[in-house]
Amino acid sequence: MKRPRLLTPGPVNLHPAAGAVLAGEPLHHRSPEASALLAQVRGALARLFFTEGEVVFVGGSGTAAMEAVVRGLFRPGERVWVPVAGKFAERWLEIARAAGLEPVISEHAWGSAVTPDAVPSGPLAGALLTHSETSTGVLHPVRELAAALRANHPEALLVVDAVTSFLLAPLELEGWGLDAAVSGSQKGTMAPPGLAFAALAPRALERLRPAGYYLDLARELAAESSGGTAFTPPIQLIEAVGAVLAAELPGGANDLRARWRAKARANERFYGLGVQAGLRPVPDAAAPRSPATAAFYLPAGRSYAELARAFLERGWRIAGGQGPLKGRIFRVSAMGYFEPDELERAYRDVSEVLDVK
Amino acid sequence: MKRPRLLTPGPVNLHPAAGAVLAGEPLHHRSPEASALLAQVRGALARLFFTEGEVVFVGGSGTAAMEAVVRGLFRPGERVWVPVAGKFAERWLEIARAAGLEPVISEHAWGSAVTPDAVPSGPLAGALLTHSETSTGVLHPVRELAAALRANHPEALLVVDAVTSFLLAPLELEGWGLDAAVSGSQKGTMAPPGLAFAALAPRALERLRPAGYYLDLARELAAESSGGTAFTPPIQLIEAVGAVLAAELPGGANDLRARWRAKARANERFYGLGVQAGLRPVPDAAAPRSPATAAFYLPAGRSYAELARAFLERGWRIAGGQGPLKGRIFRVSAMGYFEPDELERAYRDVSEVLDVK
Repeated sequence: MKRPRLLTPGPVNLHPAAGAVLAGEPLHHRSPEASALLAQVRGALARLFFTEGEVVFVGGSGTAAMEAVVRGLFRPGERVWVPVAGKFAERWLEIARAAGLEPVISEHAWGSAVTPDAVPSGPLAGALLTHSETSTGVLHPVRELAAALRANHPEALLVVDAVTSFLLAPLELEGWGLDAAVSGSQKGTMAPPGLAFAALAPRALERLRPAGYYLDLARELAAESSGGTAFTPPIQLIEAVGAVLAAELPGGANDLRARWRAKARANERFYGLGVQAGLRPVPDAAAPRSPATAAFYLPAGRSYAELARAFLERGWRIAGGQGPLKGRIFRVSAMGYFEPDELERAYRDVSEVLDVK
Repeated sequence: MKRPRLLTPGPVNLHPAAGAVLAGEPLHHRSPEASALLAQVRGALARLFFTEGEVVFVGGSGTAAMEAVVRGLFRPGERVWVPVAGKFAERWLEIARAAGLEPVISEHAWGSAVTPDAVPSGPLAGALLTHSETSTGVLHPVRELAAALRANHPEALLVVDAVTSFLLAPLELEGWGLDAAVSGSQKGTMAPPGLAFAALAPRALERLRPAGYYLDLARELAAESSGGTAFTPPIQLIEAVGAVLAAELPGGANDLRARWRAKARANERFYGLGVQAGLRPVPDAAAPRSPATAAFYLPAGRSYAELARAFLERGWRIAGGQGPLKGRIFRVSAMGYFEPDELERAYRDVSEVLDVK
């Protein structure tokens, strides 16, 4: 049976360049070819995060890299700001607590954007920010948050969950005053899940300390800087990500602007159709929308299960809500790879299912 | 350029059933199909570990599962026996130290087997054992070690690194008095690296406690027991491992005996050729040999680099030594998948390179 195509905000439809790598034999991770590959993909990713620092791979999900960064940059008892407006911000909070930090929490309605006036007073060792909050579809104004944090807490290390914003929305490390960002292979890089990466700006590199074992970014960075990895890496995914970057962004960062525009436009097409059908977007009117997903409250009288089934019948998998939004919203996404005309078919099917006149 | 075929003790040549999965689109990990797959592969693995307990997936390398088990089963300050006779035993030691445990170390020559008389007296919360020590080619007598430990330390939790013994050599959890074992996707299951799994016997399940976040086995087990995973799993690798098990062991554990025999026989062919060429095996005469790899000291007057090149010219990648054995030994392995006649070609090329008369 043919598998449904994904309109989900990660995992996403594989890029053909990733598929071509996966169809072949993996490299041995302790070979000169693997060393060259590691250096090349780390460099390409660093340029796309706009950092002069380093990118470090972590074998695992995006969460593994989130935890590795938190444990490597902060120490138990340190105060870090965690503004919470969705499920992935809650994940930062859980990670901070598990690491023994003292989170300074600000709570915000799901669907709203965290604004700079929420930056707390009092000493802070850092902040754990969410860029694209995939559970609500909001793109938090990380650049403005960073500016306010830098003004009031110049020493605080600013860490960003860029899991679904990387390659989808503008994001710069040093240029925006950010110190670290994480993402994973199954999102903007359109490969299967299993590889995470952390981008560390020079200030984060200076303050990185050993912590734990498998998730010890200091150990992993040392190994990667000498052409290897501390542990057996998911080498096939590293190769797949490299192949997708080469195919999708042959001009590197120069190609990003066009990509951001195209992804935002596709996402706005979804929003346009939903609004035409009378649906209420999850992001409130003041909140910037993430290009990674369009999120709507369910049409009156229709369940998520029924909606998901209608999409499945047309060959698509969509996503539901998480946490307090479970059973109340649905999400569609143009984050992944689409064949020529496939997105047009998606728009048409969204119109049909939502009964857009 | 065609990639060399692997005579390395992991990663190994992909099983075609894994390749077929990887050439397709990954499942969405939050789908009924993924739930069914998780349950099926977890069950198949548990039966192959001979446990009535549970198998838990960890996205990452085998080391990730090693650390997850240590942190889930032991608490800082607890005394655990770590017999050290190779690089992977050293890894247990490093993980134990990073977790704040108090390791009780016994040191053994690399190439020797740890014997039951080495079991320490004094209280022990557990032991971190290595089954197949891939750095030396020794198969430690884990069954005898477990019996001695159980006799003297009935409450101690016995944890086994089965990374390269799983599906290669006899190993049973409860039957042998073991509490936990770990392995990874790129070894006996002949898939790419990136997925680890921990098998927990009922006694380990009872004593499992939350620890950390990403590597928290208690959290992951709870999620997997209800048909999901705590974080995005490397779902394609789970599917690949399931496909390999179905193809390679259609009769499940009933097919293991024949497989163990075939793998041991292939490995002994390598040892036979090396000995014929006058080489000294790394495992000493008293040490059982792991079927996962044959390890030899280098031929007189030949470097590892030269030997590796001679194999590469014939289309094979071999492995060198690690730690104190680096530059002193080489290793070849029949752990992975070989096409019909391919192993015969490997034997022939080993004979040629080693100049067997």
